[in-house]
Amino acid sequence: MVSAAATPDGRQYVLTLGCPDRPGIIAAITSFIAEFGGSIVEAGYHSDLETGWFFTRQSIKASTVPFGVEELRSRFERVAADLGPETEWQVHDSGVRRRAVLLVSKEGHCLHDLLGRATSGELPATIEAVIGNHLDLAAITETHGIPFHHVPFPKDPAERGPAFERVRELVDSHSPDAVVLARFMQVLPERLCEHWAGRAINIHHSFLPSFVGARPYHQAFVRGVKLIGATCHYVTAELDAGPIIEQDVIRVDHADSVTDMVREGRDIERVVLARGLRWHLESRVLVHGRRTVVFS
Amino acid sequence: MVSAAATPDGRQYVLTLGCPDRPGIIAAITSFIAEFGGSIVEAGYHSDLETGWFFTRQSIKASTVPFGVEELRSRFERVAADLGPETEWQVHDSGVRRRAVLLVSKEGHCLHDLLGRATSGELPATIEAVIGNHLDLAAITETHGIPFHHVPFPKDPAERGPAFERVRELVDSHSPDAVVLARFMQVLPERLCEHWAGRAINIHHSFLPSFVGARPYHQAFVRGVKLIGATCHYVTAELDAGPIIEQDVIRVDHADSVTDMVREGRDIERVVLARGLRWHLESRVLVHGRRTVVFS
Amino acid sequence: MVSAAATPDGRQYVLTLGCPDRPGIIAAITSFIAEFGGSIVEAGYHSDLETGWFFTRQSIKASTVPFGVEELRSRFERVAADLGPETEWQVHDSGVRRRAVLLVSKEGHCLHDLLGRATSGELPATIEAVIGNHLDLAAITETHGIPFHHVPFPKDPAERGPAFERVRELVDSHSPDAVVLARFMQVLPERLCEHWAGRAINIHHSFLPSFVGARPYHQAFVRGVKLIGATCHYVTAELDAGPIIEQDVIRVDHADSVTDMVREGRDIERVVLARGLRWHLESRVLVHGRRTVVFS
Amino acid sequence: MVSAAATPDGRQYVLTLGCPDRPGIIAAITSFIAEFGGSIVEAGYHSDLETGWFFTRQSIKASTVPFGVEELRSRFERVAADLGPETEWQVHDSGVRRRAVLLVSKEGHCLHDLLGRATSGELPATIEAVIGNHLDLAAITETHGIPFHHVPFPKDPAERGPAFERVRELVDSHSPDAVVLARFMQVLPERLCEHWAGRAINIHHSFLPSFVGARPYHQAFVRGVKLIGATCHYVTAELDAGPIIEQDVIRVDHADSVTDMVREGRDIERVVLARGLRWHLESRVLVHGRRTVVFS
Repeated sequence: MVSAAATPDGRQYVLTLGCPDRPGIIAAITSFIAEFGGSIVEAGYHSDLETGWFFTRQSIKASTVPFGVEELRSRFERVAADLGPETEWQVHDSGVRRRAVLLVSKEGHCLHDLLGRATSGELPATIEAVIGNHLDLAAITETHGIPFHHVPFPKDPAERGPAFERVRELVDSHSPDAVVLARFMQVLPERLCEHWAGRAINIHHSFLPSFVGARPYHQAFVRGVKLIGATCHYVTAELDAGPIIEQDVIRVDHADSVTDMVREGRDIERVVLARGLRWHLESRVLVHGRRTVVFS
Repeated sequence: MVSAAATPDGRQYVLTLGCPDRPGIIAAITSFIAEFGGSIVEAGYHSDLETGWFFTRQSIKASTVPFGVEELRSRFERVAADLGPETEWQVHDSGVRRRAVLLVSKEGHCLHDLLGRATSGELPATIEAVIGNHLDLAAITETHGIPFHHVPFPKDPAERGPAFERVRELVDSHSPDAVVLARFMQVLPERLCEHWAGRAINIHHSFLPSFVGARPYHQAFVRGVKLIGATCHYVTAELDAGPIIEQDVIRVDHADSVTDMVREGRDIERVVLARGLRWHLESRVLVHGRRTVVFS
Repeated sequence: MVSAAATPDGRQYVLTLGCPDRPGIIAAITSFIAEFGGSIVEAGYHSDLETGWFFTRQSIKASTVPFGVEELRSRFERVAADLGPETEWQVHDSGVRRRAVLLVSKEGHCLHDLLGRATSGELPATIEAVIGNHLDLAAITETHGIPFHHVPFPKDPAERGPAFERVRELVDSHSPDAVVLARFMQVLPERLCEHWAGRAINIHHSFLPSFVGARPYHQAFVRGVKLIGATCHYVTAELDAGPIIEQDVIRVDHADSVTDMVREGRDIERVVLARGLRWHLESRVLVHGRRTVVFS
Repeated sequence: MVSAAATPDGRQYVLTLGCPDRPGIIAAITSFIAEFGGSIVEAGYHSDLETGWFFTRQSIKASTVPFGVEELRSRFERVAADLGPETEWQVHDSGVRRRAVLLVSKEGHCLHDLLGRATSGELPATIEAVIGNHLDLAAITETHGIPFHHVPFPKDPAERGPAFERVRELVDSHSPDAVVLARFMQVLPERLCEHWAGRAINIHHSFLPSFVGARPYHQAFVRGVKLIGATCHYVTAELDAGPIIEQDVIRVDHADSVTDMVREGRDIERVVLARGLRWHLESRVLVHGRRTVVFS
């Protein structure tokens, strides 16, 4: 599906690349683009002095490329080969709208927010399906014309294997670019973390690494912190420890009860998830080890 | 309608009061409450040294008041009378859910957000109706079971009188506690500003007093500011000059186009409007001249 | 020493009180003040629903009190007695300038900042002395006319007892209201934490509870967080775990090296320490267990 | 003077360039650098779609350039010539420490802060001299070993010409890279604005364009804004309207008097000025019309 809405400034081919740093990389890449007269709309570069790694993201105006995206990929292979065997790169066509599947539980604030953004054309993806372990959010999902799949989870964590398997099938049937845990409240089994590596995105309701795990606002209250936050991160096998895409905080004080924090925290959760998800969908996030490079 | 959802900590009688400052006011008010054994759940006080005015907001646990809210009001009259003829006060029963009517145009981000909050039980009001001068937001409103009234506006501002009259009738039929201009994009005529004084709330998409009027993000881009913002304020006859309830900002830089600012600004608009509206509905905002006292 | 500079709005008697909550406390306190015609300049109240504790801070205009501060304390004893045996309270005379002693090491940014604020009359205290385990900051201290005491610390932590004893003697000789660890970089022994309980204030260069202990910016870099922060807290025997007075954060991104974070973090450290220290000195901070109530 | 302190990551040659945008610019510049094996430590690019202008800043590791900075400039001339006659560019050697002259009045908080940063090695410049129209800040300046020049200003603005002329002479005698109005409180005459164009930097104590001119905190109080700010900008003939380098804000509420705002605002003024000045000194700010591109 080609969507103009996804590309307000016109269709773009977005090149992302990471490789060991050495002089001449930018020249090699930009000369390659200049040779066919490609116009670079947006460019990000980062040389990480600590890891010796180089990262770039280049948005090329599609209308200035005299061939298709497959040909672009095929031609770029030679440039990438010169940058060494560790080089990782991708070319994403912004004209192809991306797909997201959302996992939810009972709390709807992130879902409502993402549905609203999708409706407004603000989310650079279609929401293909919503999967919930409770039925609370079925109606609001369906009024937006999006299928809701109910997958109940047994109380005993040891018996949840089949439910997770059902979730995996439903998700995979959409081949999504993003699997969004929009306050899903279930810890993904390791095999699913690996299966969706680099695509599963969680919103955790604390400023990680503080308050990992359950009831982070309660933990924040007990510790008496003066700011609470939220963290959007890739899901990995280690709980709440995946590469961080975005974080933000809001000020609280002694007068805020846990209930107040939960309410105020939602405003941060919504925005942090929406922002992190958009960056992921626009190929702005490059993961390297436990850190991310975000060309926002 | 009495709603438990509006009062997570239990039903409260909320007293708000403003009067010329002098020693003994707090003692007078709190002694009055102590006499019948009332338990104060939350108390805010402010002595404004510049204006010599005193403000307070007291939340009394309804279950500790051995009579009804009308009796409470009637008894308090004597206390208020002692504080002088300029004293203004109200007692609001949190068990009576408040009503809001929303005015919208084409842009839906604030409407989506408020509908989501209403659905989640996060907004301490019911949305009674949405009135739009375009049809774009009718469907999403109606899927939430809320009536949408379409009142088209003539192109010529001079001919908009009847349309505004129709809006007034529709709004007034719901006797709302808040008339929310959720990106309504129409300047209310002076008589409506006065008619809804203290109840009409606007969200302006700039950090006022910068960038009054039309196209504030465009103005912000041209001026090259490094932060953009939004302002929730009471509507008065002077454009974008009413008492400010809440403001917030977000960082932008040279790489942000006007389009980027519009998108990023929406996140601030949503939150600032929702926060300001909640404070208004919970009787947390006391207006004095052009300034507000917000017991948040 | 009585100082007008400490009280721009005129001399104040500041009452702070914490006790088990029950109806009538505010009435009892404010009636007591109203009886002698005392004018309350600033009032803060907080009922903590989780702990059932009540906190207040009242600033009374000294010129409206028809007797001295000792008489005020003596009269208030009866009010406090009625509030139960657990009641803790103090009356602080803002006309008596408070005293601070600073402990430093090599890094001078917090010291420079506090010296500048003291010189500008912005710090509500005199800096009585600076004690350093290195000589780096002796000159800047002495150009401000403040004595600098050099107490070298042995490399072996096990042998630092006498040095800490010397620090204790120097500090105690000034009977300070605040013992400020302005990037002191030494862990206080438990007996000193107890000896200066409620008076020793530390600035930790992370958003606690994240990154306790050494090299927090390095830890933050490795974890890839998107915000770094600083925390001003009371020192207790458990490292970096005392009651938090103030915190703030600043945004970082992938382009920020550890060196960048160190530099950017200093701006937060300076402000957070100065703010927390001012609140402490103005009797705005009430400690209850591991949490603080800050009437800022 | 060559200073290692200015270049923690080693000496760098910093190229800044602005020119009309067209495909191939990045390739041309980076190929030029790659040809002699230059290593790019930090790179910033920006294509402004609204103005059609291209901006870049490239930090080249000096040790990877096999010739001197003059030769680098001379060789780059040919590249620049190809980019059209409107192209503006500079190469700055980070090994040459930059020079700043400060203009002050009575308020010392920005001066104290900059002196502290200079002492800590955090400011990438030497403070060559401080010029004040009052004597209040002479002592603190001189204790840092920096000459203070007192230039009294007549009360009548019409008679200030000779005083400004004296300031000009003193400033120009140091050929500074930055003329910092550190709360100077005097409006520079147009001829000085032009004479120091692109080098004179002011800190205004409001979030511009709100509250231009005198007493901005007072204006902010009257208007009842919920955030106050500060703006670091280049000085131009139009008052407080020059290109903005940096801005920041801090939250205030109804309880903050003008005096409180003045005190709280200082924390923002200090940081915003220090940040903006550092970016200017590190050639991170490119001015285009009334806007700035800041490669921070």
